[in-house]
Amino acid sequence: MKAEIIAVGSEMLTPFRQDTNSLYLTEKLNEIGVSVHFKTIVGDRQRDLVAAIRIALGRVDILVLMGGLGPTEDDLTREAVAEALSLTLRRDAQQVGALAARAAQWRIPMPSNNLKQADVIEGATILPNVNGSAPGQWLDTTVGKHRKLILLVPGPPNECRPLFDAECIPRLRALLPVRHIAKRTLRAAMIPESQADKLLAPIYTTYKDVETTILAHAGDIQLTLLCAKSNAEAAQARVDELAVRMEEALEDWLYSSGGASSESLEQIVLYYLGLRQSTLAVAESCTGGMIAQRITGVPGSSRSFLGGAVVYSDALKHAFAGVPPELIAQYGAVSAEVAQALAKGIRIRTGATLGLGVTGIAGPGGGSEAKPVGLVYIALSDAQKTEVAERKFRGDRARVREWTAQQALDLIRRRLR
Amino acid sequence: MKAEIIAVGSEMLTPFRQDTNSLYLTEKLNEIGVSVHFKTIVGDRQRDLVAAIRIALGRVDILVLMGGLGPTEDDLTREAVAEALSLTLRRDAQQVGALAARAAQWRIPMPSNNLKQADVIEGATILPNVNGSAPGQWLDTTVGKHRKLILLVPGPPNECRPLFDAECIPRLRALLPVRHIAKRTLRAAMIPESQADKLLAPIYTTYKDVETTILAHAGDIQLTLLCAKSNAEAAQARVDELAVRMEEALEDWLYSSGGASSESLEQIVLYYLGLRQSTLAVAESCTGGMIAQRITGVPGSSRSFLGGAVVYSDALKHAFAGVPPELIAQYGAVSAEVAQALAKGIRIRTGATLGLGVTGIAGPGGGSEAKPVGLVYIALSDAQKTEVAERKFRGDRARVREWTAQQALDLIRRRLR
Repeated sequence: MKAEIIAVGSEMLTPFRQDTNSLYLTEKLNEIGVSVHFKTIVGDRQRDLVAAIRIALGRVDILVLMGGLGPTEDDLTREAVAEALSLTLRRDAQQVGALAARAAQWRIPMPSNNLKQADVIEGATILPNVNGSAPGQWLDTTVGKHRKLILLVPGPPNECRPLFDAECIPRLRALLPVRHIAKRTLRAAMIPESQADKLLAPIYTTYKDVETTILAHAGDIQLTLLCAKSNAEAAQARVDELAVRMEEALEDWLYSSGGASSESLEQIVLYYLGLRQSTLAVAESCTGGMIAQRITGVPGSSRSFLGGAVVYSDALKHAFAGVPPELIAQYGAVSAEVAQALAKGIRIRTGATLGLGVTGIAGPGGGSEAKPVGLVYIALSDAQKTEVAERKFRGDRARVREWTAQQALDLIRRRLR
Repeated sequence: MKAEIIAVGSEMLTPFRQDTNSLYLTEKLNEIGVSVHFKTIVGDRQRDLVAAIRIALGRVDILVLMGGLGPTEDDLTREAVAEALSLTLRRDAQQVGALAARAAQWRIPMPSNNLKQADVIEGATILPNVNGSAPGQWLDTTVGKHRKLILLVPGPPNECRPLFDAECIPRLRALLPVRHIAKRTLRAAMIPESQADKLLAPIYTTYKDVETTILAHAGDIQLTLLCAKSNAEAAQARVDELAVRMEEALEDWLYSSGGASSESLEQIVLYYLGLRQSTLAVAESCTGGMIAQRITGVPGSSRSFLGGAVVYSDALKHAFAGVPPELIAQYGAVSAEVAQALAKGIRIRTGATLGLGVTGIAGPGGGSEAKPVGLVYIALSDAQKTEVAERKFRGDRARVREWTAQQALDLIRRRLR
């Protein structure tokens, strides 16, 4: 079955706002075997919207309209669907009551405009919206000789997504042939994108029945394998077979090959820290807190992560990580020696099992011929040894910092594995 | 003039990838007085693409096609435009030479498929692509009696955007009536969205010739005012007049009312620190490095930001910020007293003019009836005094942390102002 998603709202035609609901809806539709063939964004103009609806009904079986269900003059989706299909709108008495009750509950007067939200397209079913006042609508109709399903869902993500899950997916599933979806997500760190492609393309392209998606960002590669079959075990077997072959190809770049959901690199680092009953502390210069921030973004991270220091000034490198000023004077703040001293110093100061030290030149200023922008040193220290890695990352300040944080977390993972 | 942007590529119909170029293109089009009326996303299917192109040419004057210009079988934009308009494609000899030269320069063999990129639509002008192998194309044609401008631009952002700026905008500008755009961006921190709307809507709705956009995220509100007129001074005067009225209404929530570009809260904090010749150090518990990370994201931040400590464990609260263990035992790690001790302690340890201490419960675990998830204490200390603010933020871990970081930066701004 083919679907189109129409996002309604002039704000999504500005440089400032983007439709993001459609990614969520696409995922849910894909999982029940519906593929999205078109996405359209239309402003709050009824004529444009009517035309877009007619075009969509000419090319897909399922049309999801998102937004334009509120109480304002600009909310025109109900009116446009009715016009496009020459259907009437009737004001639903029960919905009027629900709107009045809602207004009373919030102790706000109900503007007459609000009643628009009780207008229901001829033949449509009302879909309750537990998080907002505008209900969704489900219209199962025919255009020419073709059956068409038209779904109206509210625009705000906290209304759209729960309503879609609770009201739309079960109704669609009941109408569609039973398909079982198997899914696996693999993740790898710091493998060059071109190398990943070279290693993996010859493998996954031979699995025509498994849809493989590769996403890459700042040293992180995420592979999603999706297979839909009428038989659940057969789908799972295909996905697992492909996953095993990819895992082998990715060797130790692979850091997560969990189930359907994906684990982040910081989650894996925390997992290994827990497993080894180890603790971590960090001394960050050029990443300025980014590594600590990623780790502490994971709930429960306090069990293994003690904290650390953002040692932006040379004085703090000394005060918090005990780096001797002479060492900085001799080798410079961005040097293998200082990174090692940071890692060792923060480990000893905090009593952590493992200390991480990071120093580098994030740019745009501060670079020289000998030490260009993008040069970083990342050191890792435990009771046995202190090791340091030198890297040169390209790109702007944000990019150098992101790659450095990713590389640092990956070095910790490799040490703990 | 009305425009439509068609983004071509099946990957943008998956749950994983989103078109972001169109926001950039929309901004540039808006600046020369072109409004975007539709955005469409189509997969790599020639039939779908041809139909979408015909639909677009029936409803807009300017059609921008993004993507599908590469060398693979899936790259079908040139073919689809030619088919939609019944035009031929000719292989351009000069482009073939350029592709061969490019391959030689990179010392890679040129697959014959590559030559597709030298195919030019009848009547189209080639737009050089300095960052990639696929050139853009500019087609000034008529459909029925209507003049239509069709622009083909490559999909990768680093190719699309410079090519659009260098080749498309000047050509469009030459064809369009001269319009001068005046722009102002105002930013405010920690004002509730509903309050901002209540204060501002009565003002900006009376300026029909100024387009006002409001974006809100985690305690940050950004207002963009845009006015286009044939007279540059008249446009600027309208924007400035509205900006002054909004600034008055926003009172001290306003933190930036610069020119056309917008400054972030951390940039403003660093600006004030520089002005007062002050330095800052932070001791972060629940934000785990997020505040330091935001500040150090600004180039040159090392002039005023010394660094700080991520004091996740109680031991580190003592070791790095000198918080007495008895104080933590008596009041708990999440308390006004500990926040103040963190702020004062980090200031004294680092020798900074200003110390910030943050402690709170980011969740999802760790909350209690007395100290629920979302409760945070933020303290600020200088040589004269140490003050603390208590806040309760709603939402998940990420949201609580983001709001806390924003509130902390805003407290620093208010202290320094």
